[in-house]
Amino acid sequence: MTRHYNFCAGPAALPDAVLARAQREMLDFEGRGLSVMEMSHRSDEFAGIAHQAEACLRRLMGIPEQYRVLFLQGGASMQFAMLPMNLLGRGGRANFIQTGIWGKKALAEARHLGFDCHVAGESESNGHIEVPSRESLQVSDDAAYLHYTANETIGGLEFDYVPTLARADGADVPLVCDMSSSILSGPIDVTDFGVIYAGAQKNIGPAGLTLVIVREDLIGHALARTPTLFDYQALAEAESMVNTPPTYAWYLSGLVFDWLENEMGGLAAIDALNQRKADKLYRAIDDSDFYSNPIARHNRSRMNVPFVLADSALDKAFLSEAEAAGLLNLKGHRSVGGMRASLYNAVPEAAVDALIAFMHDFEQRKG
Amino acid sequence: MTRHYNFCAGPAALPDAVLARAQREMLDFEGRGLSVMEMSHRSDEFAGIAHQAEACLRRLMGIPEQYRVLFLQGGASMQFAMLPMNLLGRGGRANFIQTGIWGKKALAEARHLGFDCHVAGESESNGHIEVPSRESLQVSDDAAYLHYTANETIGGLEFDYVPTLARADGADVPLVCDMSSSILSGPIDVTDFGVIYAGAQKNIGPAGLTLVIVREDLIGHALARTPTLFDYQALAEAESMVNTPPTYAWYLSGLVFDWLENEMGGLAAIDALNQRKADKLYRAIDDSDFYSNPIARHNRSRMNVPFVLADSALDKAFLSEAEAAGLLNLKGHRSVGGMRASLYNAVPEAAVDALIAFMHDFEQRKG
Repeated sequence: MTRHYNFCAGPAALPDAVLARAQREMLDFEGRGLSVMEMSHRSDEFAGIAHQAEACLRRLMGIPEQYRVLFLQGGASMQFAMLPMNLLGRGGRANFIQTGIWGKKALAEARHLGFDCHVAGESESNGHIEVPSRESLQVSDDAAYLHYTANETIGGLEFDYVPTLARADGADVPLVCDMSSSILSGPIDVTDFGVIYAGAQKNIGPAGLTLVIVREDLIGHALARTPTLFDYQALAEAESMVNTPPTYAWYLSGLVFDWLENEMGGLAAIDALNQRKADKLYRAIDDSDFYSNPIARHNRSRMNVPFVLADSALDKAFLSEAEAAGLLNLKGHRSVGGMRASLYNAVPEAAVDALIAFMHDFEQRKG
Repeated sequence: MTRHYNFCAGPAALPDAVLARAQREMLDFEGRGLSVMEMSHRSDEFAGIAHQAEACLRRLMGIPEQYRVLFLQGGASMQFAMLPMNLLGRGGRANFIQTGIWGKKALAEARHLGFDCHVAGESESNGHIEVPSRESLQVSDDAAYLHYTANETIGGLEFDYVPTLARADGADVPLVCDMSSSILSGPIDVTDFGVIYAGAQKNIGPAGLTLVIVREDLIGHALARTPTLFDYQALAEAESMVNTPPTYAWYLSGLVFDWLENEMGGLAAIDALNQRKADKLYRAIDDSDFYSNPIARHNRSRMNVPFVLADSALDKAFLSEAEAAGLLNLKGHRSVGGMRASLYNAVPEAAVDALIAFMHDFEQRKG
């Protein structure tokens, strides 16, 4: 068995140690005589797994007591609909900062549901190569919340600040952050946010699990006729078990949290490692005339590094030779083209070194 | 490693052979150097896995071309909301047959969403021990569809007929069936149904996947402002990939379908086996004065066998001794009490034999 280096944007690489442990426990979890997949979600065994995962996440991220952690289904995209239905029950308007494809989808879904929305800032006008400055952002006088995407996975554009804003009347504007592709990549201050949410399939675990971290005062105000499984209050009261949750994905996310805490040394340590990995790759790109990345330096994503070749006719050769060298999933998103290397937590530094070596070699032969 | 016999109602037992194969492939799927969990859902590798699973399911169930098969998230409970939002766009009223807790929840969710509903039949009046007769069912003149629960997992009550009905004006009433706990337990005629849906965690795979089999003419009529991820049309057009699907659960369901087809001999063979398993256990219950099951014989569930002890003070001893004997998860649902043995496809006949032997022994010692 050979494990290749996997630069997929999501579903993404998982730590070898986590997969090996899941493999060992597949048919028999801790001598119980059954797989985690076969456990009742209401059993003591699974309750232990579920609570341990949440407790570990709370320690890692420093999540205060007044936030609830929900383990849901449907992906970040389902939150695009759930958020306005939960947060507009007290009136006001949804505000959005739009810096790429995912932010645009979140805004489009709110509008699709019939909500009037305000765009507080955008980078469409610069082709999404630089996030709007804090000073340029303007929330509406009736802002109920402000939504943004901390890291745009496709464009490779990342905020270098947290856009906490107040309304003209001084009222707090709860900040709602799609953190799908940057959660757990480094420490944050959870109290800056009203809601943090993330699809699991990048830095958390397998696809099919969505994490929602929501401040308690924002729970309980869903619009009438919100589907029960969309209502944060129903979900929080039932501890994410209104119905059967994705138990195996929940268990795996717990293994990833445990790995982060006990093998990688927590978020400060992984932060430094992620910075080093990204710096290396961007330096290799910048030092070459053959590869390029268009994003403003202070907004370059640490998790998703898109780059293009000077001659796009060489794209196919680059991808097939990379794959033959054990460097998988480097193709850029179909809407952007070129290449993209995603450097999530589970992608080891050795993978980045191998990629850079391959890029040098390819340039020397074809450049 | 010892694998115990697992009678859990869901998440339920999975075939040993499926878990062993998933274990082997955990870190490296077919020499690709990565886990199925780490594959892009848009990759050729995963497309192969996804299409193979659907093709195998279509062969097993005999699903005709004019039906779409969707691999979704949210469980059967999310369908309770999605169904009226998709099927009432052309007007008319949702009709329900209510034969237990799950049917009641489906009806309650439709009403919660503001839809006026008609109850076409119910077994509440007999304490859910017998399903209403076909002759007693009455759909409303404006019936848009008729929803029922083929097998009530908690009560152990199963339909022994398919309630296909017509309206007074002769119009077809699409039949919508929650088949969560009986799907794949034997052959059915898919063309009797407008929609069949099922949570995966009983006879399909791990929790976190929901199967929806929907006739094409029922797609494309969602109400305005239906969330995109609730809209069968959007989901069907994107082949269940509007966003990232639960890829690992999809893969595992494919392994289960393959096991059913190639190791168990298909649905006719599993049907005979399931009948034998259920007959044995009900016979052991009926032949005793110590155990009893209240359900009318022709409506006894083959998948979920609830029973009570003559003296409920012995319940705890029964459960703890059963567990010590490697017979897991026999506790009845908290709303019903007593015991429940779920005999899904992956529960081998040897498990039923072991349970019956234990029941005899327990009765002789304590009865």
